[in-house]
Amino acid sequence: MSLTEFELIERYFHACGAERGDVKIGVGDDAAVLQCPADAHLAAAVDTLVEGVHFPRGSSARSIGHRALAVNLSDLAAMGARPAWALLALTVREADERWLAEFAAGLGTLARTHEVALVGGDTTHGPLSVTVTVLGHVPPERALRRDGGAAGDAVFVSGTPGDAAAGLALEQGRLPPGPHAQYLQRRFLFPTPRLALGERLRTLAGGCIDVSDGLLADALKLARASGCGVELTASALPLSAPLRDTVGLARARELALYGGDDYELCFTVPAQALEQLAAELPPAEWGYTRIGTLQREPGARVRDEHGVRAVHAPGYDHFAGG
Amino acid sequence: MSLTEFELIERYFHACGAERGDVKIGVGDDAAVLQCPADAHLAAAVDTLVEGVHFPRGSSARSIGHRALAVNLSDLAAMGARPAWALLALTVREADERWLAEFAAGLGTLARTHEVALVGGDTTHGPLSVTVTVLGHVPPERALRRDGGAAGDAVFVSGTPGDAAAGLALEQGRLPPGPHAQYLQRRFLFPTPRLALGERLRTLAGGCIDVSDGLLADALKLARASGCGVELTASALPLSAPLRDTVGLARARELALYGGDDYELCFTVPAQALEQLAAELPPAEWGYTRIGTLQREPGARVRDEHGVRAVHAPGYDHFAGG
Repeated sequence: MSLTEFELIERYFHACGAERGDVKIGVGDDAAVLQCPADAHLAAAVDTLVEGVHFPRGSSARSIGHRALAVNLSDLAAMGARPAWALLALTVREADERWLAEFAAGLGTLARTHEVALVGGDTTHGPLSVTVTVLGHVPPERALRRDGGAAGDAVFVSGTPGDAAAGLALEQGRLPPGPHAQYLQRRFLFPTPRLALGERLRTLAGGCIDVSDGLLADALKLARASGCGVELTASALPLSAPLRDTVGLARARELALYGGDDYELCFTVPAQALEQLAAELPPAEWGYTRIGTLQREPGARVRDEHGVRAVHAPGYDHFAGG
Repeated sequence: MSLTEFELIERYFHACGAERGDVKIGVGDDAAVLQCPADAHLAAAVDTLVEGVHFPRGSSARSIGHRALAVNLSDLAAMGARPAWALLALTVREADERWLAEFAAGLGTLARTHEVALVGGDTTHGPLSVTVTVLGHVPPERALRRDGGAAGDAVFVSGTPGDAAAGLALEQGRLPPGPHAQYLQRRFLFPTPRLALGERLRTLAGGCIDVSDGLLADALKLARASGCGVELTASALPLSAPLRDTVGLARARELALYGGDDYELCFTVPAQALEQLAAELPPAEWGYTRIGTLQREPGARVRDEHGVRAVHAPGYDHFAGG
């Protein structure tokens, strides 16, 4: 091996993200030094992607780089925060230059799109995993919280949940490829953090959560934190045409409710703010859909053609599900 | 498996660190929300420990928890920053409650000692590794940097380097246990981040780096960043009595120069500030020693009884050495 750890970090990650004037000391010292705006609080999130758990072995390095940052940006979006800086802890089995270049391209492209500077890193030797920490800003007392919902609030979701779960199944060969395979796989490999929507929702939404473990599971987390239950309406779920065409309506609804890796926003809006929401953020333009209601009764329920049924322990859990 | 990921995080890490009034939203939402002081910059560092690379398989969970935070606090110490918050990304093969309780005790005890709040986390399933991100504060334009040294500056190190390398060798059975085994093993298992010293050095030191890859390797990094070379004097190395007694003088010097995992501070002080340093921080009280000098000539050199010799590519590299 000819590259030292130091050279590796220097070469691929020094100029990987956006340039920002508020980075006083960036990659290359013991710690980064950053200037926070005086009128904002700091938002901070961390997420790890492990090979074989969060992405299949042999996944494209570009996708892994993109997703490692995207899943964290999605957490900031769910708080209504604007991202600024990221730190990368990368564990790889070997220093493969081509892999690293692709990984850095995936992470760097998304970082520059959202003006995120990569300010620190640690590269270690071991089974492939990526941990990204993102830092951003949010006006004091204005962060969107999970516990901001109330019984009677309308429940919304952005985008078209279920696509990513179908994309993962295609990646893994569990679903036969069809004419929409590429679209669905891209929804898994390159999720879109809903940062602009999150920021606009600060003044409109009650509660907000990012959808990573499955829409119903995450909606239930929001409902529980808000001291409520949640009822979703199957026929209201925004299913993409590629998803419906590929797996049929019933399976599409299942994937939308229980599939993971969507990185969409699930948020609640009080009845009296619904008109303002529609006026300020036209749904057709901003891409979100009303899918249900927070209710006083705890638990998660789905309403479909056959009535309302309670759903227990929905969604993906890294330990329970394995 | 009966615990869900969410319950795991809640149970062990919710109240693990210090309580701080500047944590507006802590563990349990999509991101933490933190209030930064108006008169400080933010310092941020990330480090990963991988089982089998940074600690032996089967290491005590309490030590792993302590070290995962300590190595990051050491990075903040090297910047002269005061820590405030930490985020934990923990990857474990299984949700072993006893292991998690011990790990949380190790991390939490050190966190509370330094008033660090644990504000975010992600627990995932996979080969054991721990990534901690620490955030702290440092007065604007006062951070200690690697590139702050100059030719002629005196070079110092805190503590007694080499102890941790001997401790690791004892842990791995590469060194036969003797009467000092416990002391040396503790220096590896429970390193002490030199935070108080780092803060005091802000007004006194030129350059500073934390010693993790070996004293000579890290002193050379500081020298290079400062556009210099470095000469260390073997007879000046502060060797602990347990280390000398266990491995003899010659091997003790080698471990002090080339062994890793010390988490001490290596710093430089201009000649005209040496008196002030000794007056404000009496060496006997603060535990640091002059070990050499920054020089105009690039590279690393060691002076001993036989003269001065150049040293090439010293120290541990996770890829080159690994």
